[in-house]
Amino acid sequence: MTSPDAPPPRRRGRPADVDPESVALLALRRFDEHGYEQTTMDDIARLAGIGRRTLFRYFPSKPDLVWGGVEPVVGRMRAVLDAAGDDEPLREVLARAATESLTLTPEAEEATRRRMALMGTHPALVGFGLTAIAANRGILVGFLARRLGADPDALRVQVLADAIGSADFSALLWWARHDDGPPGPVVVAAMDEVLRGV
Amino acid sequence: MTSPDAPPPRRRGRPADVDPESVALLALRRFDEHGYEQTTMDDIARLAGIGRRTLFRYFPSKPDLVWGGVEPVVGRMRAVLDAAGDDEPLREVLARAATESLTLTPEAEEATRRRMALMGTHPALVGFGLTAIAANRGILVGFLARRLGADPDALRVQVLADAIGSADFSALLWWARHDDGPPGPVVVAAMDEVLRGV
Repeated sequence: MTSPDAPPPRRRGRPADVDPESVALLALRRFDEHGYEQTTMDDIARLAGIGRRTLFRYFPSKPDLVWGGVEPVVGRMRAVLDAAGDDEPLREVLARAATESLTLTPEAEEATRRRMALMGTHPALVGFGLTAIAANRGILVGFLARRLGADPDALRVQVLADAIGSADFSALLWWARHDDGPPGPVVVAAMDEVLRGV
Repeated sequence: MTSPDAPPPRRRGRPADVDPESVALLALRRFDEHGYEQTTMDDIARLAGIGRRTLFRYFPSKPDLVWGGVEPVVGRMRAVLDAAGDDEPLREVLARAATESLTLTPEAEEATRRRMALMGTHPALVGFGLTAIAANRGILVGFLARRLGADPDALRVQVLADAIGSADFSALLWWARHDDGPPGPVVVAAMDEVLRGV
């Protein structure tokens, strides 16, 4: 028995292993070279040397290829915020969470840069990722409520979580257009703008 | 000659006047009572006593009925920010822009409350409105760049514009669920959380 969410079992005549991150990176490069609209799922399957059905099991749609790498980042952010002691200053915890969640392999950094550049030019793709954004938001709401000693549903907590989450996303979009280095420092600087106020 | 964007001309046998705001409010009430998915454009046309084609000219899709009332608010925000003198403190200008843009007739306030409540339960609708959100963002970017004496494309300007815009939207979602009064004071308080920092 396999659960419906488990990776597909090996089959005779199919490639033995599918590395979803490699497939996503390959797709993101192709989108850059040939255009997002112009590239089909069939093109991606052919390039990756896998069957069309296999591709669709990992990535049910083209936007999934764009958003695919976001979940691990959100997971690392959660891990840092959950584990933080109450005596570490709030700004330091948030900066560490951004830095650790955005410490990427060269391939993941390239994929993140291409992903954000694509979202910058195709805003509809942002809407597709609202579920991932909502997960990140929930993590920030929980953390801020604990640290500010407030109800998670308090206006202040809700608003600051959205402002910080939005600053992170905004910083990644900016980074993809402007900065050749890793994304962590840019996101930390952006977060600090919000935490410092105007 | 009429421009393609002008309201449709009167026609024999059709209702003389269509008030888009009334139609949108009527639709938002209907969505609340019968469910967003369960309500069809035909239901709305029938309720409004207008033809199906007329309805589609004003509102090309169901999400347009939800987002329809947002543009005037964005327009009023722009007017205040554009007209502000350089000697008025930044926080006061932003608070005044929020207050004036959100000074609503009772009908518009009801529509805004229902609109935000619906977005809270149907996040995909938020994505639909990214164009309106982007317009508001552009206004904030221009204003902040002027006031902070920075390039509109500077990280700080981009990030703060997104954080403030996100705080406004977040506050409206909160207000629709929690507050019986007008939305302005809640949005001003939210904006101030961000401007003050943590």
